[in-house]
Amino acid sequence: MTAAPYPFSARHIGPGLNDTRAMLAVIGVPSIETLISQSVPRSIRLDQPLALPAPASEAEALAELSATMAKNTVLKSFIGAGYHGVHVPPVIQRNLFENPAWYTAYTPYQAEISQGRLEMLFNFQTLVTELTGLPVASASLLDEATAVAEAVGIALRHHRDKRTKVALAGTPHPQTLDVVRTRAEPLGTEVDGETIDDNTAALLVSWPDTFGVYGDHKAAIEKARATGALVIFIADPLGLTLTDAPGKLGADIAVGPMQRFGVPMGFGGPHAAYCAVSDKLTRLMPGRLVGQSTDSKGRPGYRLALQTREQHIRRDKATSNICTAQALLANMATAYAIWHGPAGLQAIAGRIHALASRLAAGLNSAGISVTGARRFDTVTAEVKGRAAEIAAAAEKTGRLLRVIDANTVSIAFDETSTEADLGAIAALFGAKPGADASTMPGKPRGKEFLTQPVFHENKSETDMMRFLRRLADKDLALDRSMIPLGSCTMKLNAAAEMMPVSWPSVANLHPFAPASHSAGYRAMAGELEGWLSEITGFDAVSLQPNAGSQGEYAGLLAIRAYHRSRGEGHRTICLIPSSAHGTNPASAAMAGMSVVVVRCLEDGNIDMDDMRAKANEHSKNLAALMFTYPSTHGVYEEGARHLCALIHEHGGQVYFDGANLNALVGLARPGDIGADVCHMNLHKTFCIPHGGGGPGVGPIGVKAHLKPYLPGHVTEGSAHAVSASPFGSASILPITWMYIRMMGASGLKQATETAIVSANYVATRLAPHFPLLYKGRHDRIAHECILDTRVLKESAGISVDDVAKRLIDYGFHAPTMSFPVAGTLMVEPTESEPKRELDRFCEAMIAIAGEAAKVARGEWPLADNPLVNAPHTAAETLAGQWTHPYSRLEAAYPAGDADTAAKYWPPVSRIDNVAGDRNLVCSCPPLSDYLGAAE
Amino acid sequence: MTAAPYPFSARHIGPGLNDTRAMLAVIGVPSIETLISQSVPRSIRLDQPLALPAPASEAEALAELSATMAKNTVLKSFIGAGYHGVHVPPVIQRNLFENPAWYTAYTPYQAEISQGRLEMLFNFQTLVTELTGLPVASASLLDEATAVAEAVGIALRHHRDKRTKVALAGTPHPQTLDVVRTRAEPLGTEVDGETIDDNTAALLVSWPDTFGVYGDHKAAIEKARATGALVIFIADPLGLTLTDAPGKLGADIAVGPMQRFGVPMGFGGPHAAYCAVSDKLTRLMPGRLVGQSTDSKGRPGYRLALQTREQHIRRDKATSNICTAQALLANMATAYAIWHGPAGLQAIAGRIHALASRLAAGLNSAGISVTGARRFDTVTAEVKGRAAEIAAAAEKTGRLLRVIDANTVSIAFDETSTEADLGAIAALFGAKPGADASTMPGKPRGKEFLTQPVFHENKSETDMMRFLRRLADKDLALDRSMIPLGSCTMKLNAAAEMMPVSWPSVANLHPFAPASHSAGYRAMAGELEGWLSEITGFDAVSLQPNAGSQGEYAGLLAIRAYHRSRGEGHRTICLIPSSAHGTNPASAAMAGMSVVVVRCLEDGNIDMDDMRAKANEHSKNLAALMFTYPSTHGVYEEGARHLCALIHEHGGQVYFDGANLNALVGLARPGDIGADVCHMNLHKTFCIPHGGGGPGVGPIGVKAHLKPYLPGHVTEGSAHAVSASPFGSASILPITWMYIRMMGASGLKQATETAIVSANYVATRLAPHFPLLYKGRHDRIAHECILDTRVLKESAGISVDDVAKRLIDYGFHAPTMSFPVAGTLMVEPTESEPKRELDRFCEAMIAIAGEAAKVARGEWPLADNPLVNAPHTAAETLAGQWTHPYSRLEAAYPAGDADTAAKYWPPVSRIDNVAGDRNLVCSCPPLSDYLGAAE
Repeated sequence: MTAAPYPFSARHIGPGLNDTRAMLAVIGVPSIETLISQSVPRSIRLDQPLALPAPASEAEALAELSATMAKNTVLKSFIGAGYHGVHVPPVIQRNLFENPAWYTAYTPYQAEISQGRLEMLFNFQTLVTELTGLPVASASLLDEATAVAEAVGIALRHHRDKRTKVALAGTPHPQTLDVVRTRAEPLGTEVDGETIDDNTAALLVSWPDTFGVYGDHKAAIEKARATGALVIFIADPLGLTLTDAPGKLGADIAVGPMQRFGVPMGFGGPHAAYCAVSDKLTRLMPGRLVGQSTDSKGRPGYRLALQTREQHIRRDKATSNICTAQALLANMATAYAIWHGPAGLQAIAGRIHALASRLAAGLNSAGISVTGARRFDTVTAEVKGRAAEIAAAAEKTGRLLRVIDANTVSIAFDETSTEADLGAIAALFGAKPGADASTMPGKPRGKEFLTQPVFHENKSETDMMRFLRRLADKDLALDRSMIPLGSCTMKLNAAAEMMPVSWPSVANLHPFAPASHSAGYRAMAGELEGWLSEITGFDAVSLQPNAGSQGEYAGLLAIRAYHRSRGEGHRTICLIPSSAHGTNPASAAMAGMSVVVVRCLEDGNIDMDDMRAKANEHSKNLAALMFTYPSTHGVYEEGARHLCALIHEHGGQVYFDGANLNALVGLARPGDIGADVCHMNLHKTFCIPHGGGGPGVGPIGVKAHLKPYLPGHVTEGSAHAVSASPFGSASILPITWMYIRMMGASGLKQATETAIVSANYVATRLAPHFPLLYKGRHDRIAHECILDTRVLKESAGISVDDVAKRLIDYGFHAPTMSFPVAGTLMVEPTESEPKRELDRFCEAMIAIAGEAAKVARGEWPLADNPLVNAPHTAAETLAGQWTHPYSRLEAAYPAGDADTAAKYWPPVSRIDNVAGDRNLVCSCPPLSDYLGAAE
Repeated sequence: MTAAPYPFSARHIGPGLNDTRAMLAVIGVPSIETLISQSVPRSIRLDQPLALPAPASEAEALAELSATMAKNTVLKSFIGAGYHGVHVPPVIQRNLFENPAWYTAYTPYQAEISQGRLEMLFNFQTLVTELTGLPVASASLLDEATAVAEAVGIALRHHRDKRTKVALAGTPHPQTLDVVRTRAEPLGTEVDGETIDDNTAALLVSWPDTFGVYGDHKAAIEKARATGALVIFIADPLGLTLTDAPGKLGADIAVGPMQRFGVPMGFGGPHAAYCAVSDKLTRLMPGRLVGQSTDSKGRPGYRLALQTREQHIRRDKATSNICTAQALLANMATAYAIWHGPAGLQAIAGRIHALASRLAAGLNSAGISVTGARRFDTVTAEVKGRAAEIAAAAEKTGRLLRVIDANTVSIAFDETSTEADLGAIAALFGAKPGADASTMPGKPRGKEFLTQPVFHENKSETDMMRFLRRLADKDLALDRSMIPLGSCTMKLNAAAEMMPVSWPSVANLHPFAPASHSAGYRAMAGELEGWLSEITGFDAVSLQPNAGSQGEYAGLLAIRAYHRSRGEGHRTICLIPSSAHGTNPASAAMAGMSVVVVRCLEDGNIDMDDMRAKANEHSKNLAALMFTYPSTHGVYEEGARHLCALIHEHGGQVYFDGANLNALVGLARPGDIGADVCHMNLHKTFCIPHGGGGPGVGPIGVKAHLKPYLPGHVTEGSAHAVSASPFGSASILPITWMYIRMMGASGLKQATETAIVSANYVATRLAPHFPLLYKGRHDRIAHECILDTRVLKESAGISVDDVAKRLIDYGFHAPTMSFPVAGTLMVEPTESEPKRELDRFCEAMIAIAGEAAKVARGEWPLADNPLVNAPHTAAETLAGQWTHPYSRLEAAYPAGDADTAAKYWPPVSRIDNVAGDRNLVCSCPPLSDYLGAAE
């Protein structure tokens, strides 16, 4: 038998053996082991291989996972409760969801190379403002439950944290209420009852409620407005196509899930939630907002607006730690709305509504009472002790109903429901479908909404396919070039990892289906939890947090609950080094902790003297330390074990931020180092694609003593969930499962080693041109390096922005800019980048240094050189007059490869960020505005 | 219930209702019905709707087809016989096979916009020359069986049709022998026996034979060479990675199937066959050949070489009618070889070989005799009456063996076979796996093959993904713009139609699995045959022909057999109008008919006087008329019914060329008009994508009297097959099934009507600028129009080539050039193109007329204007010196849309076709050549 020369690890890891040898030679070490022993402190090194299954080939892993997921029982769901069956339009599935040009893109921080997905997210915002009748919408939140919690957070901030009560108008879905209460409690906020008074921060209007009923909440809304409480609508977006917009009904905020806009249920996620607010709340909105600005030539261009709004400002006063969106899923939902247009959406909603109305009428005729008078898609029936029996009978016909209690069963229709379903379900109750009469609340929505051209074009598949390609072509993603983003680990998202996400057994399961129906999912999740525990050195893992920030929050909640369980609820001080990502203090604040900042030294390392002093000072009240390792400066600090021991001595718990786990897997384990809890970013270290700005998945690992305090879920018989579904973004967990299954212990370790080799290689090649800001032991770095581009500012007046934008002309996405140090670039090559791409990048950076030198020498004026003018669009480089002191070819093909290269042309020149924030435009005006202007 | 506003037909058809109204207004007719009644003769109009199932939505059709295909029983196949299980590398499946940038591309006749797939096909040729050790390879043939027949055709041509015998060395697969004999018989050639003499045109060496055995054929080969017979190897390409190349063993030609290079079995196809020849046979090779040439700036560029070689020259003397390749599948196979590289391929082959060797050794040890001594992957065992019993036992374990006869069973291993399979199969024989010892013939192939860089790069998935995208980005396919190819009907290939092709139930079935295992396929095929019969007005349909040319051939064979069955074997005259596509006479010649050409009038219509005269003259021997309708000139000729009646009066049969069926579906039926047989191009009219030059599918419909003469298949208990598997390219038939199922009768009719509206719209808009060459009744055209660009030649010296290449700058694939009339462009917009794309095209053509006018007026010199210099690459337009009399922006953005357009940049400027043919380079030299040059 001949061994396969290319196991999956050789496919995942970019450099081959010869490449690695060549890189080691440049670094100046004889072997990988030498480099690792120089860079990673001996004290934390793992002595044995991870205990993981031997690596499987792509085909073997796919077959194994397929067999596991086949254990799921996928019946037709009428459960509803926020999750609905959908028809994913095939043109969207193939050309967006399964297209690496869309799913491998990064968060659109570099606006010039992100115009395609920014345009789509802008359309998402327009869609949401049109549905809700509120003027400002964000680029999506994580799910309904967290979106409601975020909306409550807006209300609290709006009232400057002076009001402490949230009232309910209609009962939200149980999981929503649970998450909102989980989030509210540490902030001292109570969510309950219908009473509204001067202490009420917000009124939550469930539109409809969990029984599918649109209650009469006029009086409550009026009372809320009178007392200054914000009115928050939790509204089904498809229902909104048939009735008045919440904005017209007094809503200040509207939130809800966009899942049923063409995103599969996926056993709970991921999908996008929407959030829209009134004008006055714009700057309190959490998450991301896409705005319109102009480029240097005055052309319109999209960008992320108000980027400095979030936790970067409030840090330890934050009531939100959101730092991502569900971009890929929001874009799918937008594409779905564009594909169907307002008429199509209303037709889909109308069909669903007719099914529900006819069932309700039929049940009524058969003498069965039905909850409420006004509904969209859900019928809740009173069946006097027969709920379980009816649900069981339904299951025998292949249909799942929702058993609310022994006497109550509910049926939610969706776009996959058929006439046959209606008949069969009615028959379960001994009824027949009744007459169709609308029972929607309010006035029917006319044709006056979604009038923007984009929702009326692209109705043929040819148009839609080209539209999606045109947008994708505007962007630069991993399918075209390296994205060397420090701290974001943009590695390969292998096709074999992605394929299971589209399987019907993975995509079409309702998260609240009977537990036995998700046997496959639970088996997969169980294995994954075990593997992640082994990789990180913990005793238990929760997969529920659906973003890194949510993992941080869940971990801190566990620490908080632990202290409280021991009667040490007074322990609320959280130490955080000054170098931490802004999300850390925000999460701590949300978990009811007070942040104490620990200083860092000039070399970027934690000031251990200050650490000891602060730990000492707050010893009695010390709750936790949060720290990132390797540090946000990209080095393995010495003494991590000592640090953990110090915190433990003072009775604190250690929270390990796993942002840089890609430098540890297989080499060292947070649990061994002394951490009590750690979150892992599956979208960084474990191959879930960034999706152009989400989804993310942020599981946490904990030591045994914290296990009782992991997030639960109301449908699993527990509570204190941090996201809407028990397993969070369950449908993308198979990506990580596949990765670990195919890599095995040896592959994972080799990946980490290669990431370190590649980073040290880039650092070594670039060090003569850009000082390395921080180095660790033996002057080595971990898996990323900070290039001090401020030298160009000093020598030539060239800013880090100029370097980043000039990289676009060379065909690269810029590295992380100005984090953790302003004016610098943080480069993380990852193990997946081939050496020739690393070389292309190094050569581009060296050439840019050369270009800056020309400016420094006065050969090119500071006001007119290819750096400050970057990036160069095709239109500019072809202009009739060329007045610049460098050539057109130098502008567009600086690497001199005009004849051979696959050139990326940016669609816009440099975007003006300041002008955009000053003149915030974050959704398209309706067509009526255009018409008005023309008249 | 609200009806869906966008049924699938509205997705497939580009123009919406308002668009169609606007187009009708420009044409100057009040309604579609008026236009249709003006253009389509009343005498042929269909009076009632087609009897087809009511249209299904995408989701409904997918669910229905999924349920049907679930009736297939997909066991693990060890049947072999030319079809093997494969692991399609996921990176190739996602980024090539399922990527519209690859599958919607057209045949690369326009070299400048086809460099990506031409490069891949060039690599395919290199791969084949390396495997076979022969210097010249083509860009693929249809399947093994037809490839062997084509190789025999080369031998016959080589011997100027003077030799009439083909000898066998080793037994080919039964289906191969059947197809070769079917093809040989009408040419008066006998394929049989081992005797080699001066009348032997070729020796067919089965390498290995159908029992898996590499026989000792040295003596036969020497004899053949001594007598001048060509030596044709039918060689398993994977086996060739382990042993001597056929070129070293005396082969003049080598052919075989590339299916096992990563293309699923798909119940028989499609996949690519390879064909390689010695130098002296280059210009006799059938099919397509990619060569290297240079562009106008001297840069290397690929192109289709020797395009005038084929049937265009020999027409009625042709022994091949091949006018397509299996480009998409050849490209998949090449990508597979690049992905695995020589080491990977040898490892895969070595693993398979070890399994076979160990089974053979084990059987021997257990006292079971095994056929032959030298093998690669297949073990044939003598089991004395127990063959069926053993196969049945194997089936119970989920494995299919091949029962050759009651005493003989064979087992073929492939890359999906496992150690467990080996053990289980050995156990069926009461044996255990034996020792591993190579039993391959000849010397082990060293590492000296596939040394070209491309087979050593792209081993990481990141590299491979980017490589595939880079190549795709060089090409212009339907996912970016209209491809207005007259006679080729480049319509939408909808994602919902494409998805089933990837389903395991569709992809992984062996074509010779027991009939009961393909119940799903047979049900689908049965429905499809019924629908196609209804659409065309015939009584029976054969889906077997896997290209239009093969359909023609099968149809003529049926006519021939019919005449012979009635004792009228002397009827061998085939009338063909002079306007016919060159494939028609070639097919007739291959079917043993003599072609008599009928004149056409100046207006393009058939000269009915000449027709009557010729029919009269050949009345006694008249076999058939072949005619295309609407004509190749794009008009509905009057009197089609009379024409058919005339032929029938003279005892002839009417062959209807269905190339232009897109102008008839739902409006008229060939069978009603009087045709006896017709082929349909599923890749034109019925949505199978062109794949960048294949696959094609060409079923035939026949009247009842011809039904007995449809192609059979040896595995179905009949014979006279025209392709290797019973249902031809079975796995892509679901594309057409989905199309018809989703369109229904009304949608199909509307599609045809829209195609006619769109063509007349384009014709009306362009008529003031380019004379319309042919028009029908009421000056209307059918679904395509011929624009007489010769006016520009006369007025300005601008050639049709200049217009075609200038269209590239405008972002378009050129229409069909110089067919059927030299110097003209034939435009077929199809129903799928949105009106705005039609307008963009019209505006480009009008602008080009304006540019030519500037040349005519002397504003631009003939030697230097944007037309003769087109297409313009980015490198050229950015050059330091710009000496042209038009601007850079005019060069690259002639539509003035530099700020907004998604610009397609050609990677090369105009390719020199003549130089390429003169200096034919059709595969990469091995790396050793480069090394030699460097030393």
